[in-house]
Amino acid sequence: MGDGQAVSGRLYGLGVGPGDPELLTLKALSILKRVPVVAYPALEEGDSFARAIVAAYLPAGIREIAVRVPMSPDPAAALGAYDRAAAEIATELSAGHDVAVLCQGDPFLYGSFMYLHERLADRFAVQVVPGVTSLTAAAAAAGRPLVARNETLAVVPATLAEEALAARLAGSDALAIVKLGRHLDKVRRVLARIGRADDALYVERATLPQQRLSPLGQAPASAPYFSMVLVPGRRRR
Amino acid sequence: MGDGQAVSGRLYGLGVGPGDPELLTLKALSILKRVPVVAYPALEEGDSFARAIVAAYLPAGIREIAVRVPMSPDPAAALGAYDRAAAEIATELSAGHDVAVLCQGDPFLYGSFMYLHERLADRFAVQVVPGVTSLTAAAAAAGRPLVARNETLAVVPATLAEEALAARLAGSDALAIVKLGRHLDKVRRVLARIGRADDALYVERATLPQQRLSPLGQAPASAPYFSMVLVPGRRRR
Repeated sequence: MGDGQAVSGRLYGLGVGPGDPELLTLKALSILKRVPVVAYPALEEGDSFARAIVAAYLPAGIREIAVRVPMSPDPAAALGAYDRAAAEIATELSAGHDVAVLCQGDPFLYGSFMYLHERLADRFAVQVVPGVTSLTAAAAAAGRPLVARNETLAVVPATLAEEALAARLAGSDALAIVKLGRHLDKVRRVLARIGRADDALYVERATLPQQRLSPLGQAPASAPYFSMVLVPGRRRR
Repeated sequence: MGDGQAVSGRLYGLGVGPGDPELLTLKALSILKRVPVVAYPALEEGDSFARAIVAAYLPAGIREIAVRVPMSPDPAAALGAYDRAAAEIATELSAGHDVAVLCQGDPFLYGSFMYLHERLADRFAVQVVPGVTSLTAAAAAAGRPLVARNETLAVVPATLAEEALAARLAGSDALAIVKLGRHLDKVRRVLARIGRADDALYVERATLPQQRLSPLGQAPASAPYFSMVLVPGRRRR
């Protein structure tokens, strides 16, 4: 930071919670108010959900780096985007500027922050600030205890193949099926097969004004990416 | 609240996070500052961890209800304690006072709040405020992404019998074994047997000043209740 002796900035992975700006932590807010640079994942064109969550708290004049990752079938395209973003962030860090990467939910639970983390953590100081995840936010919205006492919880992405999905879900007391999107029909079939469909809840955009909650049987025909299916522990059945 | 026409208060299940007071959410803080009554689980004699987390934020003069649950082998003793606490909270709610129950971590992820919830939710308005869980706080402290992309996560209490523990952990990419306490030796044996011991991390009191982190192989002989073992997803192996 001083002339001639560079002290690198610190990289923050900042969990900003599931969507409601009030679910930001005091720690994330305090870091957000003092860093000169924020970075965030964004669609190739348009908005960033992570940025929208904290938009009201962003200081005027903060420098912004949008990490625009193409929705391409070619994995190399996404990796190239992370390479470029990591290089841009590294330039800021090397200049002594702290950089906070905004992560919806929690940075280390299905977060794209890991792609930046693995590119930068060997060269720069990193601090990860955990955030409220959509898992517990969805259970809170539904008013249903997710897992209790000696129960087990399986968190499984709906993107798995049908057999793998069934294998991972069977035998666990509570289930959370994330990354729903276009996989809703497959999830319905698997839950019916393992006998857990009746108690399954569909939760879309938990904690946001457009939040939508229903038994799985009354869920819409297709689900957005920010939705999940929860099956609470068996205790109450 | 007015004379003669009683409007009941609202019951809040307030997630206060894993331990660092800065990991409270803005929403939890705002509720804490406006409710006239807080309740919290506490040891039969002595302190409450949930209360300690928010001690600096508690307004002067707030009424406090300590839910003291005996550590008795007789389950009826604990249930009786919840019955009495629920009755005391119900009296406040019926008098029109909002009551916030402080829950370490998240109220619906292995939280004792469910015992009050099931006794009160049919009679009073309830709002659950999700909190940062010790799961992602421990991963953040360790600087290790817990679960990514198409990986699965199994959350399993160490209290399960050895065979059940092995069955629930085998086949999942990432593992979180909670409620460690005196079960650490059993967890070591199970992880060795399923070939996941080498990548396992021991995390004690994540986010607190006394936080302790090590590879499982260097963990202490016995673990406190507020500790866990994490095995991050297989991606980096």
